[in-house]
Amino acid sequence: MKIKANIPKGMRDFSSEIVSRRNFIFDTIREVFECYGYAPIETPSMENRVTLTGKYGDEGDRLIFKVLNSGDFLSKLDLKENTTSNSLSTKISDKALRYDLTVPFARYVVQNRNEITFPFKRYQMQNVWRADKPQKGRYREFYQCDADVIGTDSLLCEIELIQLYDDVFNRLQLPNMQICLNNRKILSGMIELMDVESQAEQVLILLDKIGKRDSEKLKQELFNLNINQESYNILASFLQAKTIQEIDELVSESIIGKEGVKEIKFILEKINNLSLKSTDINFDISLARGLDYYTGSILEAKINGLDIGSLGGGGRYDDLTGIFGLDNMSGVGISFGLDRIYLAMEEMDCFPNDIIQTTDVMFVNFGDKEVNYCLPLLKELRENGISSEIYPESVKLKKQMNYANNKDIKIVVMIGEDEIQSELLSIKYMKTGKQEKLNLKDLIKIFK
Amino acid sequence: MKIKANIPKGMRDFSSEIVSRRNFIFDTIREVFECYGYAPIETPSMENRVTLTGKYGDEGDRLIFKVLNSGDFLSKLDLKENTTSNSLSTKISDKALRYDLTVPFARYVVQNRNEITFPFKRYQMQNVWRADKPQKGRYREFYQCDADVIGTDSLLCEIELIQLYDDVFNRLQLPNMQICLNNRKILSGMIELMDVESQAEQVLILLDKIGKRDSEKLKQELFNLNINQESYNILASFLQAKTIQEIDELVSESIIGKEGVKEIKFILEKINNLSLKSTDINFDISLARGLDYYTGSILEAKINGLDIGSLGGGGRYDDLTGIFGLDNMSGVGISFGLDRIYLAMEEMDCFPNDIIQTTDVMFVNFGDKEVNYCLPLLKELRENGISSEIYPESVKLKKQMNYANNKDIKIVVMIGEDEIQSELLSIKYMKTGKQEKLNLKDLIKIFK
Repeated sequence: MKIKANIPKGMRDFSSEIVSRRNFIFDTIREVFECYGYAPIETPSMENRVTLTGKYGDEGDRLIFKVLNSGDFLSKLDLKENTTSNSLSTKISDKALRYDLTVPFARYVVQNRNEITFPFKRYQMQNVWRADKPQKGRYREFYQCDADVIGTDSLLCEIELIQLYDDVFNRLQLPNMQICLNNRKILSGMIELMDVESQAEQVLILLDKIGKRDSEKLKQELFNLNINQESYNILASFLQAKTIQEIDELVSESIIGKEGVKEIKFILEKINNLSLKSTDINFDISLARGLDYYTGSILEAKINGLDIGSLGGGGRYDDLTGIFGLDNMSGVGISFGLDRIYLAMEEMDCFPNDIIQTTDVMFVNFGDKEVNYCLPLLKELRENGISSEIYPESVKLKKQMNYANNKDIKIVVMIGEDEIQSELLSIKYMKTGKQEKLNLKDLIKIFK
Repeated sequence: MKIKANIPKGMRDFSSEIVSRRNFIFDTIREVFECYGYAPIETPSMENRVTLTGKYGDEGDRLIFKVLNSGDFLSKLDLKENTTSNSLSTKISDKALRYDLTVPFARYVVQNRNEITFPFKRYQMQNVWRADKPQKGRYREFYQCDADVIGTDSLLCEIELIQLYDDVFNRLQLPNMQICLNNRKILSGMIELMDVESQAEQVLILLDKIGKRDSEKLKQELFNLNINQESYNILASFLQAKTIQEIDELVSESIIGKEGVKEIKFILEKINNLSLKSTDINFDISLARGLDYYTGSILEAKINGLDIGSLGGGGRYDDLTGIFGLDNMSGVGISFGLDRIYLAMEEMDCFPNDIIQTTDVMFVNFGDKEVNYCLPLLKELRENGISSEIYPESVKLKKQMNYANNKDIKIVVMIGEDEIQSELLSIKYMKTGKQEKLNLKDLIKIFK
């Protein structure tokens, strides 16, 4: 039976060009993470289902990929009692695929707390899976790159993470980068002043979705939630505030709100003294970030003038590990969205030309005698770290040159009777077409 | 509800020490792959279930992890008609997790054949999942590192892959490495001469399992398969043969057998002329390798005197892509077993000391004023590629030094009133305990 060669929707194959470009981004982020003192950890692709469910809201629960139990998973099950997808699925799948890196990190910290030195600075770069509806730029398997510090509430961590963002974007040469900064405590203060604590989550979702962009729509949606004119006016005054000073006055009646303002001021002052390399940083009261585990600073990185959403985001959480039995662990973390960064770099033409992995030197294959002469030379090139190969078959020269062309090979070496006699190699620079004769030593020098 | 922090059996968390050591192995293999002209590709974790099933035998099919369909997967299903685990599972899971890298590679080649330049040299380093019974050294998620050439039957590829094995083991400084080489064509010739073609698979499995180690047991097991004394004698004569020359005489009546001998001779002659760096290579008639897609050369790498099984293996296959509709694609590939290599390197003490990612410099935190003085220095160290951090809280010195100790930080910088005045930094080398005063420039020089 022939089987059609294709892959599930939302999944991707990566050619070597794409792998090389992705690795360039990964390597840059990894280098910066390590330069800032973050150590790598990895967690398994599968977690116990109960570890993941209930952490991402109802919608998140639906999007978690569940793994079918192996073996005869129905043997102990009464099918008559399990006739809905939901009830059956909890009985036949104990494991689920990683949905993000934060919950597995929290689980890791609790499980390994006796071996960990706190404050714990870790980074993690692994793929995650979500059963989202596939669409342009949204995949069912994608990478996340996270850095977190857990075990301290020091705002120096926020400052460090903002510098880290700046450093990565600067090294990737991404232009027009902007970091938006807000604080959940300010938003809590605002909610308190609006007197809508019971609807806090819905208000924050609207703030994220609509923000300052469409005040009429925001007003309408808030009224749909039965939020009154007076409360709306308070929200509107916050949204109109241009500076953190104005916000400071607005929250003067809220203890938690004032705390948030104090935190933002501390961070911005230190950042301004240090000055970022190529990233703008701005306070943005309309930034709310959906995930409900954030309790302090929240931040988001985006590229001005490019409508592809945020390239990363993060924030402070006071109780991420509580659900696993470890209380009072404040932490703060940021995440890089690899696919968006890739897209932005492509769009802005930021990828260096020389990052695609190609072969430096190819020996043409003219037959067994010539091959025997070439093999030791090939070995010596490789020992000198020069990526090289010999065409595996003695076919027509044109076919071999086409191969070299398609693979973007830099130099082709031709060794026939003459070259064996003279001990000189005939080489051709594939880009310019220039040819010359030289000895092995000089060929090696070209790449040093 | 508190949830216990643990992971499914057969799964692993990796601490930063382990990630660093694993990355050292990955990086070494990747470097060699690229030096030999192999280009990286990646395939998705999930394949369509039909892509994977039926490729690894019945046992393999059972060990493939299936992913539950999302949404209301039961809605169109009559549970009364699907009461066995097998029949239900095909209806409720369309996707499965990668079981090895070879079948997804074959699928990739067929799907992308119009974009690929053949012969196609690719490498792939990704994790795979198997629902094996977890036991010491056997996990349900593990990495494979494969290199394959597809689209040519040239034996130069086998030679290159043997050199590549040697190069990787040499760079990893793994001692006593040995490559065993055989050829399926020789085994086919032997089977032909034994006149047991219909039981070829079972005979090869026994050869792999028992080989030369226990001739009595082998004899018994063969008799259990109703293989007669005459056939057994032929097998025994093959097993007793010490050299490829003796095998040559034994297969003189088999065309395919003679072809196999010719191939081995060609490979060994060229390899002997080139000489390997630190690996022994031996012909081994008892090497059969289970997977039934191999049709030519087969090889396996192991470490002499260490009983942990093979560190890698591979072989030539004539028709890997046929099942996906692309015929006549000969290929050859090898695989590195990361977990076994890791185990061997630990056992033989091969890991260099300096590969664990640690912070180079930590600034002690004596309070806000001192922090303000330290932050620009910290920034400068990082700009010079020196991994550094500041302790996030102004707590007791002892606690901060403990942190530095536990994290294996190399140098601790202490900046108080005196240091701010003198513009000299007080540093402590954590390993020796030695202290001195120097300026930032000299601190940077220590790491250059």
